[in-house]
Amino acid sequence: MSTFLGELAAAFPAGQLETDPALLAAYAVDQGPVLEHRLPVAVVFAERMEDVQTVMRLAAGHSVPVVARGAGTGVSGGAHATEGCLVLSLERMNRILEIHAEDEVARVEPGVVNADLNAAAAEYGLMYAPDPASYRISTIGGNIATNAGGLRCAKYGVTRESVLALDVVLADGTLIHTGRRTFKGVAGYDLTGLFVGSEGTLGIVVGATVRLRYLPAEVETLAAFFPEFTTAAAGVLAVGKARVQPAIMELLDGNTLIQLDREQGSNLRSRGGALLLIQTDGFAARTEAEIIRRELTGLGATITAEDYEEAVRLVELRRHSRGAEVDDDFRVGEDVAVPRSQLVHYIAELQRIAADHGVGLKVVAHAGDGNLHPTFWVGSGEVQKVPALNAALDESIDVGLALGGTITGEHGIGQYKVRWLPREQREEVLELQRSIKRLFDPHGLLNPGKALPAGIEA
Amino acid sequence: MSTFLGELAAAFPAGQLETDPALLAAYAVDQGPVLEHRLPVAVVFAERMEDVQTVMRLAAGHSVPVVARGAGTGVSGGAHATEGCLVLSLERMNRILEIHAEDEVARVEPGVVNADLNAAAAEYGLMYAPDPASYRISTIGGNIATNAGGLRCAKYGVTRESVLALDVVLADGTLIHTGRRTFKGVAGYDLTGLFVGSEGTLGIVVGATVRLRYLPAEVETLAAFFPEFTTAAAGVLAVGKARVQPAIMELLDGNTLIQLDREQGSNLRSRGGALLLIQTDGFAARTEAEIIRRELTGLGATITAEDYEEAVRLVELRRHSRGAEVDDDFRVGEDVAVPRSQLVHYIAELQRIAADHGVGLKVVAHAGDGNLHPTFWVGSGEVQKVPALNAALDESIDVGLALGGTITGEHGIGQYKVRWLPREQREEVLELQRSIKRLFDPHGLLNPGKALPAGIEA
Ligand SMILES: Cc1cc2nc3c(=O)[nH]c(=O)nc-3n(C[C@H](O)[C@H](O)[C@H](O)COP(=O)(O)OP(=O)(O)OC[C@H]3O[C@@H](n4cnc5c(N)ncnc54)[C@H](O)[C@@H]3O)c2cc1C
Ligand SMILES: Cc1cc2nc3c(=O)[nH]c(=O)nc-3n(C[C@H](O)[C@H](O)[C@H](O)COP(=O)(O)OP(=O)(O)OC[C@H]3O[C@@H](n4cnc5c(N)ncnc54)[C@H](O)[C@@H]3O)c2cc1C
Repeated sequence: MSTFLGELAAAFPAGQLETDPALLAAYAVDQGPVLEHRLPVAVVFAERMEDVQTVMRLAAGHSVPVVARGAGTGVSGGAHATEGCLVLSLERMNRILEIHAEDEVARVEPGVVNADLNAAAAEYGLMYAPDPASYRISTIGGNIATNAGGLRCAKYGVTRESVLALDVVLADGTLIHTGRRTFKGVAGYDLTGLFVGSEGTLGIVVGATVRLRYLPAEVETLAAFFPEFTTAAAGVLAVGKARVQPAIMELLDGNTLIQLDREQGSNLRSRGGALLLIQTDGFAARTEAEIIRRELTGLGATITAEDYEEAVRLVELRRHSRGAEVDDDFRVGEDVAVPRSQLVHYIAELQRIAADHGVGLKVVAHAGDGNLHPTFWVGSGEVQKVPALNAALDESIDVGLALGGTITGEHGIGQYKVRWLPREQREEVLELQRSIKRLFDPHGLLNPGKALPAGIEA
Repeated sequence: MSTFLGELAAAFPAGQLETDPALLAAYAVDQGPVLEHRLPVAVVFAERMEDVQTVMRLAAGHSVPVVARGAGTGVSGGAHATEGCLVLSLERMNRILEIHAEDEVARVEPGVVNADLNAAAAEYGLMYAPDPASYRISTIGGNIATNAGGLRCAKYGVTRESVLALDVVLADGTLIHTGRRTFKGVAGYDLTGLFVGSEGTLGIVVGATVRLRYLPAEVETLAAFFPEFTTAAAGVLAVGKARVQPAIMELLDGNTLIQLDREQGSNLRSRGGALLLIQTDGFAARTEAEIIRRELTGLGATITAEDYEEAVRLVELRRHSRGAEVDDDFRVGEDVAVPRSQLVHYIAELQRIAADHGVGLKVVAHAGDGNLHPTFWVGSGEVQKVPALNAALDESIDVGLALGGTITGEHGIGQYKVRWLPREQREEVLELQRSIKRLFDPHGLLNPGKALPAGIEA
């Protein structure tokens, strides 16, 4: 290890190589629950793609695992340090290299913060569509590595749908370019898609060409308050039946409203037991909002005409609805997605599960996509209740799968959900993925223990 | 070979196994140019996924290559028979297994014809968005294997964006399931995306779960006739600048109009030198059409208000604009896609190239995506002009690449474009793909010689 650190020190100036314990601790975890706390041996702050190549070559030479890190806002432990690893931070590679308005593309370094790209694109009447609720802090590289979803993904698609080309440094330090600058292209296998969502286990993203979309001419926001959570969920299906595609369709339950009121000083819970927050956009924003208003009012919703500022405020509140707390042993947020028809049923099941196990529950959902974020909790420090919490989590996963769902709609497997993946995918599919992993990373140095459960021979 | 045929005959009744020479000839080629004509040793018509497993197991046992075939409408030779191969036709696996209106998904067998799925979905107010011009005859399995684009992909995305899950039979006969029924999901690597567009070289698609979209409430069609082809192409950029996203934006040059007039008895060429055919859809169809009309009229277009029937007729004409002829030695259609800003320039270059080499040229383009289909030709039978034709093709590829484009926007590499792929992708990227191919198909039995150029060791 000391020769490895010596070679790193020879390759990088002090400001780029950090071994200060406080800094190591800060870069040891993301925002996901921690199963096993480890400190990295060092953090390297890459400033250019050659730095990443240098890191990978040195790490390969010394068999040191490398954990890539964007902003560390992941919630599945994908960026958690593992035994003896180096953390490779991409946050300083944060230049927007190009915004080409006529091509409707941008080229960025991986550390560009999502909101910064959106601000730059907005000057051209364009936007980078995928907007995780963490868009103010998370990086494009992290978004790509997790295939992040977001609020307006119901209409515009998730990260994958906006990534055209990637520059990737492979495990041995080779730099490759995948994809193309054009919107369409079918030359060769979809390597770009393979890297998207691979959570730093197949290669390090050092550059991306992304597609931009048109900033909508008009936006309408509806805040539909329902007495009951399940009726609000039924509203999602009613909107679909009216064949209207909102840009945003977020569902917040009563406990989420209470938490927001407490943290933000709002009075949402007094207005209803659940909130369906809908945004339509584009040239038909108003027409679509009218149709939705009619459908939801018919279902018993109370809808006040929100003015622009109130609308923006509610969407911003939703973006903060994870709340200030970070997941820990006593509070875990989940990420199941179910087929749309199962939304109402799954929500009822979540409520039953929480009651059965005597744990707290709040739920927000990217409801347009059937993607739910239930958070289960017990009192902080109530160690004796942790088994009940874990039992509730397990059951929520199993019920989601039984309803045709997936264990993770957008947050990724990371480290925390590895144990659940075999409940969703069969061994032959896992083994096929392991063999792809071995192909890209024969020595298992790229973010080991993440994204895939170890095989029998591993 | 005779034991192989004997085992096939033991496994399949006569109606499913064909060795009749006329039938072998009919199943020996798709609609792409033929470089080397080969007959398959037999054609098996699979009727269920177990048939596909049986074929793959027997083929593996006898080292017989297998060429999957949908409707054979491919234009890159992806379904051409190769030396000693078996053709595996999926056309009889044509059942729509489920249309779930609330989940907005369909499950289909691979041989379902695109138009049939769309007709079935329409009864629920839904559509399967990717609509290659061949939608009346091509299969969903073939569309998936080529990642087909289409007219309305400018707005709704290509095939990849509508495929949620796949059932795939691997080279050794193993059946796997990839993906999920939900719109979103990030569990594991994107195996689904890897199979989409892999042209039958990684596995045989035996089932698919696809996402359906809302049939638009309103559709408006504009036929904008321009005096010049390049101005029409400039119109595409003007529409983008107005930040309007049409569902369809097709560009047809003068020679295409002449051909359509000849074949269909229309009078398009008399109305202009180039046609930009635009469809807007959804609740803002009319508003968007109005904005586009204003922009294009400003550029010198003549736009008559088309009534519904005329509009449908023009779009249908466009769908037939490949014409009745099939590619051969004397006529080859291309499929370059360029960044949008290069459309006008590339079109001017195509005209120059055709003039320089003394060959004919007509161009249609899915212009919203920057995807062009130039067809170059010489007189049928004019063998001495074939070198000029090939030189023109080669130059059109090189110029497209120099402008930041790709050699194939939607038709695939197949057999015909294999030689051009190294001009677009570097050796290390090709080698990475070859290693994926070896992983999935260690004995090289799945559609050998297609999609990827052979490596040094192959
Ligand atoms: C308040 C809050 C709201 C959130 N809302 C959403 C949401 O709406 N939708 C959603 O999808 N997620 C959401 N998340 C989760 C998180 O923000 C996303 O997963 C985000 O994409 C992570 O980006 P990051 O830059 O923080 O990456 P990190 O957390 O640093 O890393 C995430 C993963 O990607 C890998 N990685 C990072 N950069 C690279 C790179 N350049 N190359 C290769 N691998 C890399 C890491 O190793 C890790 O496995 C939310 C999180 C918070 C805290
Ligand atoms: C008039 C005309 C218009 C066209 N317009 C378009 C267009 O607008 N956009 C576009 O993208 N293409 C277009 N094409 C090309 C062609 O129709 C598409 O490539 C289509 O997707 C092929 O479908 P198919 O069922 O005919 O497949 P085939 O031609 O039979 O096969 C295509 C490829 O897929 C493989 N394959 C087929 N089925 C399977 C399966 N089940 N599993 C694994 N591999 C399989 C084959 O081996 C081959 O490599 C057009 C063709 C014609 C003739």
